[in-house]
Amino acid sequence: MKHFTSVQDIGPLEQALAKAREVKKDKFAHADAGKHLTLLLVFFNASLRTRLSTQKAAENLGMQVMVLNIKEGAWLLETQHGVVMDGDKAEHLLEAIPVMGCYADVIGVRSFAGLTSKEEDYGETVLNQFIRYSGKPVISLESATRHPLQSFADLITIEEYKTVAKPKIVLTWAPHPSALPQAVANSFAEWILTAGYSLTITHPKNYELHNAFTAGADIVYDQEEALQGAHFVYAKNWSAYQDPFYGKRLHGDPSWIINERKMALTDNARFMHCLPVRRNVVVSDKVLDSPRSLVIPQAANREIAAQVVCKSIIDSIKTKSI
Amino acid sequence: MKHFTSVQDIGPLEQALAKAREVKKDKFAHADAGKHLTLLLVFFNASLRTRLSTQKAAENLGMQVMVLNIKEGAWLLETQHGVVMDGDKAEHLLEAIPVMGCYADVIGVRSFAGLTSKEEDYGETVLNQFIRYSGKPVISLESATRHPLQSFADLITIEEYKTVAKPKIVLTWAPHPSALPQAVANSFAEWILTAGYSLTITHPKNYELHNAFTAGADIVYDQEEALQGAHFVYAKNWSAYQDPFYGKRLHGDPSWIINERKMALTDNARFMHCLPVRRNVVVSDKVLDSPRSLVIPQAANREIAAQVVCKSIIDSIKTKSI
Amino acid sequence: MKHFTSVQDIGPLEQALAKAREVKKDKFAHADAGKHLTLLLVFFNASLRTRLSTQKAAENLGMQVMVLNIKEGAWLLETQHGVVMDGDKAEHLLEAIPVMGCYADVIGVRSFAGLTSKEEDYGETVLNQFIRYSGKPVISLESATRHPLQSFADLITIEEYKTVAKPKIVLTWAPHPSALPQAVANSFAEWILTAGYSLTITHPKNYELHNAFTAGADIVYDQEEALQGAHFVYAKNWSAYQDPFYGKRLHGDPSWIINERKMALTDNARFMHCLPVRRNVVVSDKVLDSPRSLVIPQAANREIAAQVVCKSIIDSIKTKSI
Repeated sequence: MKHFTSVQDIGPLEQALAKAREVKKDKFAHADAGKHLTLLLVFFNASLRTRLSTQKAAENLGMQVMVLNIKEGAWLLETQHGVVMDGDKAEHLLEAIPVMGCYADVIGVRSFAGLTSKEEDYGETVLNQFIRYSGKPVISLESATRHPLQSFADLITIEEYKTVAKPKIVLTWAPHPSALPQAVANSFAEWILTAGYSLTITHPKNYELHNAFTAGADIVYDQEEALQGAHFVYAKNWSAYQDPFYGKRLHGDPSWIINERKMALTDNARFMHCLPVRRNVVVSDKVLDSPRSLVIPQAANREIAAQVVCKSIIDSIKTKSI
Repeated sequence: MKHFTSVQDIGPLEQALAKAREVKKDKFAHADAGKHLTLLLVFFNASLRTRLSTQKAAENLGMQVMVLNIKEGAWLLETQHGVVMDGDKAEHLLEAIPVMGCYADVIGVRSFAGLTSKEEDYGETVLNQFIRYSGKPVISLESATRHPLQSFADLITIEEYKTVAKPKIVLTWAPHPSALPQAVANSFAEWILTAGYSLTITHPKNYELHNAFTAGADIVYDQEEALQGAHFVYAKNWSAYQDPFYGKRLHGDPSWIINERKMALTDNARFMHCLPVRRNVVVSDKVLDSPRSLVIPQAANREIAAQVVCKSIIDSIKTKSI
Repeated sequence: MKHFTSVQDIGPLEQALAKAREVKKDKFAHADAGKHLTLLLVFFNASLRTRLSTQKAAENLGMQVMVLNIKEGAWLLETQHGVVMDGDKAEHLLEAIPVMGCYADVIGVRSFAGLTSKEEDYGETVLNQFIRYSGKPVISLESATRHPLQSFADLITIEEYKTVAKPKIVLTWAPHPSALPQAVANSFAEWILTAGYSLTITHPKNYELHNAFTAGADIVYDQEEALQGAHFVYAKNWSAYQDPFYGKRLHGDPSWIINERKMALTDNARFMHCLPVRRNVVVSDKVLDSPRSLVIPQAANREIAAQVVCKSIIDSIKTKSI
């Protein structure tokens, strides 16, 4: 694996899932694989799970890990090309990225969508500059349009908890007080569909996602209809993708919350969410605290997903250096 | 040791002190004991000594250490139950804690008293949720009511510097420009009394501590009387514990400063403070800079105390996993 | 090497450069040299290259590294002696420094010039207190008046890219929107002159540097004249050193920018800058993005310089402890 930015990079999903099962059996089976390799984790946005799980995974493999929160302790970074840098930004990505590449063997980067320019977000301008200018393998820790480590962990979790070969999986939009990126929803759809599962996506009108991610899914505007017979309910807020609403929070219709009444419509479904989750906005306490909730197993699988990815990148580095 | 939150968890103090002496002889005698174990240090409040000494101690034992400053780079955390999370707090402790537990084998947590609700503070609501929801051993890095790693280090220091078997130990309130928790004072009293020493506590009226911690100590309202013949003078500010003043800075009476004139009343006493200390408010430069000051040896013993605690928790984990 | 704060500490430069070449051949040739030694990196100011490159270098040698950003997660530090600490600063350097010394075997510290008091800055009050009170070897990560790890990396880079034995090296002042310290310029001059190279320094009048650093260099006020025949052009802004302008940005004359027209005056010179650099203020995009720019190789050599310094300090520690 050269870079890890989407489901395309992981190879056949059956093999990836098999590797995940191996990691779960023994996290330290390759405790020296990453010896003398350094993973730099660069955060332009907040993180709890991603930072800790990726750091832990890399250390399980014997890598050194350095964490850089761009807003703390580093220089403010300019991202636009051609500008006269006479403002508050002391350094340009065009220097910062190759410099980071000097000190790291692998770079993980988190850079959320700005939600003001669809072109900039869906062009993945920050992530792609890391790929282009760092000279090193890049792992997406959630980019503007995808969160592949989360989606891989979600898929591992579904494999572990499914009770029928082809479960009904429903991705439902949920309310939220602020405008959020589409990355988690995009990425979840992409992985679930690539894995060969059927996916139902439900959301209010005008919250349609980019069909590059959702092609093949059933889009149902009636949430209750969508939830009928579901085995997995994945709730997530996202802002509008379609023009002229790109990046906007059109509304936060509270009737879209996932609560016990909604879960009663399902086939005793498991509840899923990537976290962090707004209690009693996205989902009720009762659903989140019920034994049907998988949010903690999903989070635990973040370490597993990250370890599979790191190991694969380490293997590529070693193959190349032979 | 399952958790470490108070003197109750350390077992017989003679044995704990013996272990401390062993660590001081060779910090690397068990440099592989913590191999493949990760300590996560979670800070809701500022730290210098605690973070560095605990990280160092754990690394002396071969553990991996991850540091999470809640206010930097992570999501703001909601701590109240049952709320509708539509404000600025993106994540709830009820998810954040078990998630942290996924990626760590041991969790250290610092969460100071809020000083607005005695019930919440003395109920140790944050610390206890870590114990309840993380599924992992928890080390207090100073909780609302206790600072046991500090007190253990203080006891080690007293053992090293005492010149009589039963020294007179005086804990004195001192002025401070802001309202501080009672944790250090509570904890110091608890450890010193548990160790079988006699303890004199002196403070202005209405600054009485909770007698759950001080029962057995002599309470003397006249500071100069209390200092007579002291071998150790431990200065520390705290806010009021007693109702209706809970958490309040009633005053910062400057006459309570420890200076050379006060130290002259003692039996050539050693000066102690947990640090950070306000120079010329809590204690004069001359006392702090004198050779009788033990503040740096106390700080150095923080690493020793943390290493004894980490080693004991590692041993418990390994015993359980056999 | 006891401390590393200037070119004086590195010993004969030929030997230092030979060690740098050795490190470049195999960064892991001494991967256990720093075992059981901890490097603490303390930052009073922002850092990207210095933090990452020094951490990486130390880890290449098997050291443990702890990073402390003073403004994040620690207590605000008082630096003035004799004050009554009743403001917002909770801890004094006089305690903080020896405490840090308790938990570290080597301390790296970054503390920029305040640019308000020449006496305080050129007295190196913060750096010197670390040397005096920590009891441990101290590495300057850029102090008020020098940035020796940068200068060492710069010298390594010049050695690698020079095509004549005695190249013409030009240090030129460049515009900048804010007032910057003189440290990089001072230090560059000191190292280049110590290495036996001839150095031309060009800047507007009243931007003269301290002649303790520049004695032996040619000072030329006409930038275009200075650039004639140059093999290396090192651009850098600095504020005024001379009284009564100390620390002031007298102006940011844009005609001093380095652009293609200026580079055409040179003997096909290499462009150098320590980074971070203000694009199109200090230097034009075209020069910075040209193949003649060495800014990334300079940055890469920061790891090499740091590793030579760390290894030398490790050797001293081990010699002393035998």
